[in-house]
Amino acid sequence: MASRTLYSLCGTDQARPFSPHCWKAVLSLAHKGLDFEERPLAFTAIPGVENGFSKTVPILRDGDELVKDSFEIALYLDEAYPDLPSLFNGEGGKALARFVESWSQTQLHPAIVKIAVLDIHEMLDEADRTYFRDSRKAFFGKTIEEIAANREDEIAAFPAKLEPIRRMLGYQSFLGGDAPLFADYIVFGALQWARVTSKADLFKPEDPVRQWFERCLDLHGAKGRSVTAA
Amino acid sequence: MASRTLYSLCGTDQARPFSPHCWKAVLSLAHKGLDFEERPLAFTAIPGVENGFSKTVPILRDGDELVKDSFEIALYLDEAYPDLPSLFNGEGGKALARFVESWSQTQLHPAIVKIAVLDIHEMLDEADRTYFRDSRKAFFGKTIEEIAANREDEIAAFPAKLEPIRRMLGYQSFLGGDAPLFADYIVFGALQWARVTSKADLFKPEDPVRQWFERCLDLHGAKGRSVTAA
Repeated sequence: MASRTLYSLCGTDQARPFSPHCWKAVLSLAHKGLDFEERPLAFTAIPGVENGFSKTVPILRDGDELVKDSFEIALYLDEAYPDLPSLFNGEGGKALARFVESWSQTQLHPAIVKIAVLDIHEMLDEADRTYFRDSRKAFFGKTIEEIAANREDEIAAFPAKLEPIRRMLGYQSFLGGDAPLFADYIVFGALQWARVTSKADLFKPEDPVRQWFERCLDLHGAKGRSVTAA
Repeated sequence: MASRTLYSLCGTDQARPFSPHCWKAVLSLAHKGLDFEERPLAFTAIPGVENGFSKTVPILRDGDELVKDSFEIALYLDEAYPDLPSLFNGEGGKALARFVESWSQTQLHPAIVKIAVLDIHEMLDEADRTYFRDSRKAFFGKTIEEIAANREDEIAAFPAKLEPIRRMLGYQSFLGGDAPLFADYIVFGALQWARVTSKADLFKPEDPVRQWFERCLDLHGAKGRSVTAA
């Protein structure tokens, strides 16, 4: 058994973990070549593990260490395992990964919430559905049906949001340059979240961003393909 | 006399260089602590220097070396002067700066063009006005008056475009972390272009992005303040 456990998020089907932040952590561990056991949890099960260490996943248990938050986990992994391939390639890469995270959280995540919120609700068990409805209502001030009201418009508007990635791909194959870094996993996590939960098609076949996303799905033994598209 | 010359861009007033890309190069040279003479040129004067080396500025002449393009200049400076403060802080920082550039070019620049295009035109001499009108018409398929048609809407929509920077500033003082890197100068260049050419107010006084911009204006002997706001 692996000495490492990654607590992640799922609905009734434990084989379909979907959290964007947990996918970032999954690819980060795979990038470092570290063995781990993934334990997908229902939303309402999170406070019950590791003595309520965190209200959110991912949570990484690595021997005696306990780390939460995907960015913190990536920083921890690079510090704890400096001889394994870096997730940041230097201090500049670390600082700018925070900008990539901020871009993804403010530009991609709000759109994907609107696109996928009803699909995510469908994936949950009864207790989680109640929690999900109530917590979204508290956060957005809207029912999940209201959040999803302009879903088709959001899908149509989505490709334009990826324009910064598209332009960058004219220079290099990954955000990290010739090879992926944590910054790639940040954006991958958002799109994988959409892929696993929703049937919405977010880019055209010939879109360079789709080609980059397919390359990311192939990484580390095609880890991202271990869960099929919705 | 400095052995380095930076060719940049101006209108009739040589004391008001305004190109975003040239400002990136100015702060990059200042970041490295390198002396240089700035030679602001009219658009139509660019092909006449350095035997028509480049159709665009910035152009850096450093002894026998001739380099064009702001990103190439930053890469050149870090390679030629590895012992002076780095503009990228490692390979990860270099790769992700390209994403920052792609974000700025696709999200900020098109908006600033619409906001400032008539102001820029006003700054030019007759020959440059004709060149400017014709080249914008060829590129955008619109007259400069048409480009500026929704100027007020663009100004109102601008602060939201800075949201990725705003969120990142909750974690750190600069894109580069505790101190600025070339990635900061990329975004600074866009906002300085707006500041020098246009009276449009692009953020509220209490906006953390304005505070970051003011910090950038103060850098390297307040180089950015050597030209006053429009």
